[in-house]
Amino acid sequence: MASEGKVITCKAAVAWEPNKPLVIEDVEVAPPQAGEVRVKILFTALCHTDAYTWSGKDPEGLFPCILGHEAAGIVESVGEGVTEVQPGDHVIPCYQAECRECKFCKSGKTNLCGKVRAATGVGVMMNDRKSRFSCCKIDPKAPLEKVCLLGCGVPTGLGAVWNTAKVEAGSTVAVFGLGTVGLAVAEGAKTAGASRIIGIDIDSNKFERAKNFGVTEFVNPKDHEKPIQQILVDLTDGGVDYSFECIGNVSVMRAALECCHKGWGTSVIVGVAASGQEISTRPFQLVTGRVWKGTAFGGFKSRSQVPWLVDKYMKKEIKVDEYITHNLTLGEINKAFDLLHEGGCLRCVLSVHT
Amino acid sequence: MASEGKVITCKAAVAWEPNKPLVIEDVEVAPPQAGEVRVKILFTALCHTDAYTWSGKDPEGLFPCILGHEAAGIVESVGEGVTEVQPGDHVIPCYQAECRECKFCKSGKTNLCGKVRAATGVGVMMNDRKSRFSCCKIDPKAPLEKVCLLGCGVPTGLGAVWNTAKVEAGSTVAVFGLGTVGLAVAEGAKTAGASRIIGIDIDSNKFERAKNFGVTEFVNPKDHEKPIQQILVDLTDGGVDYSFECIGNVSVMRAALECCHKGWGTSVIVGVAASGQEISTRPFQLVTGRVWKGTAFGGFKSRSQVPWLVDKYMKKEIKVDEYITHNLTLGEINKAFDLLHEGGCLRCVLSVHT
Repeated sequence: MASEGKVITCKAAVAWEPNKPLVIEDVEVAPPQAGEVRVKILFTALCHTDAYTWSGKDPEGLFPCILGHEAAGIVESVGEGVTEVQPGDHVIPCYQAECRECKFCKSGKTNLCGKVRAATGVGVMMNDRKSRFSCCKIDPKAPLEKVCLLGCGVPTGLGAVWNTAKVEAGSTVAVFGLGTVGLAVAEGAKTAGASRIIGIDIDSNKFERAKNFGVTEFVNPKDHEKPIQQILVDLTDGGVDYSFECIGNVSVMRAALECCHKGWGTSVIVGVAASGQEISTRPFQLVTGRVWKGTAFGGFKSRSQVPWLVDKYMKKEIKVDEYITHNLTLGEINKAFDLLHEGGCLRCVLSVHT
Repeated sequence: MASEGKVITCKAAVAWEPNKPLVIEDVEVAPPQAGEVRVKILFTALCHTDAYTWSGKDPEGLFPCILGHEAAGIVESVGEGVTEVQPGDHVIPCYQAECRECKFCKSGKTNLCGKVRAATGVGVMMNDRKSRFSCCKIDPKAPLEKVCLLGCGVPTGLGAVWNTAKVEAGSTVAVFGLGTVGLAVAEGAKTAGASRIIGIDIDSNKFERAKNFGVTEFVNPKDHEKPIQQILVDLTDGGVDYSFECIGNVSVMRAALECCHKGWGTSVIVGVAASGQEISTRPFQLVTGRVWKGTAFGGFKSRSQVPWLVDKYMKKEIKVDEYITHNLTLGEINKAFDLLHEGGCLRCVLSVHT
């Protein structure tokens, strides 16, 4: 490619300050160094963690910054020593690395990778600690404007059920928060054979849509005076087998644990809480058999498993299109952020090159 | 037996008020009703939860009461319909029931039984809600003055490792609190093949003895300025695989979770915290792969598994004698409570009929 090895100029939506509208600007992108890959992003969706970083509350959010981590694109060029992908490959730039060499990757117990976190946590590349992702090569026939969602939200929900909780057939499941991640949890639970999938949200307008993703019953905490955990315990003869918090609210995380059945109920924290916030409960909740867990990217290994998710989508075994409620262009990104805060929007995919 | 069906008079150490010395009195014990068993207690050890109830801080502790739940004895008579034990059988009166009929017992996921908790929690029998245990029959050759310890503390520690955490060979383990339960955790971890067993206690005098139970390294938090979780993370290249809180202190429970390795570390709460106290942490600790659990009676089923523990003791596969540091008589029970608060004492066994 003619641009290989050269600095190139690209369009980007730049967040100069917290909460100030993003500005579409020309930015220069340096060529990839050893082990690095430069990707032409074609589509990106927005995730609530983008909005969190943009709000200024994310201690790792440095400004100015270019948001958008739920994306898909084509490899433009590669740096020295890169053999896994080549220019033209279709890729999803995963935020969770998978080096396959560190003790995390070799443990067989986690999808977290220890290699690049120290650098990406402060917005720089590993090689030289300067600003310039882990990519996984995917089926070139997969529509990038859809599978960009497999870079974050949908796998997070599916994986929380399949990898972290390991929900069995016949289980009773509670899902707190019916956004994209919550609906993906419901879809995962349905696939796993859960017999009851109870959706909890303070916006009853979300209930009808949630049925398509497998939710069988709905509870709006606003309709009840008792604490939501008590309502769920009463509804399920002692509590649910599995619960999932897909909001990022520490009070809801407590309710999600406490609505679990004594003896075996497992609660998984999926939502991202604001910095400095803490979860709490009485230790008796755990001593009497409840288990409190969490998940990052649903426990999926990025390079190894995202291509497998793309294949499952291509075989129509998992939903992706159904989560896309809006399509806009990069220039309309501020409108997209507004949509994210409306209950009607699940994912808005931005077309970058139009 | 001549006393069958009659009210009998027995000696008991009665706690009339919180923290007031116990008084040895004659008490009348009614004959066993349908499904009940009357047991002649020969030996009992004291546990820190006895001291907790006696302190008045246990909301379920009603006064007057007869303490002592880590006991062993002989069946004196049985009520109508009792077929599993008969007069003369050697038994350990377990505080955790196992009815084998309720959904808890049938779940295969927990040792908690749902049948009698509502009654025992307020100090009455199920039949008529009046004041008058689940017994498991054991090998009559087992010395009751030793195996009474298998009614609570020792199985709690061993089971926390074997049943709840399921520690694998080669694991790194941290044990907070080196009393009877903590030492049983160390013994369990050693049996499971743990490669490093780190004992943490604020009394360094406990370290030498702990070596006999499998502890390989010691840390006294008082010797360090940094928080204990940080000390352990530094000592273990990122944290331990498993940690156990065997004290009942909610701050230590937090430290025990946070000293676990990112990605897979599992922390088990074994100690009983005072009523109303809460545990807390940042949800990020769980989202990055740590698991928070708890255990009651180490996950052992009482009727099914305590006789198995007695057999393991008889085959010298688990320690029991080594936890008994003192022997006294029932009349010396107040001295025994004083000993419980001294670091040198593990278990003090009281001989009831002397």
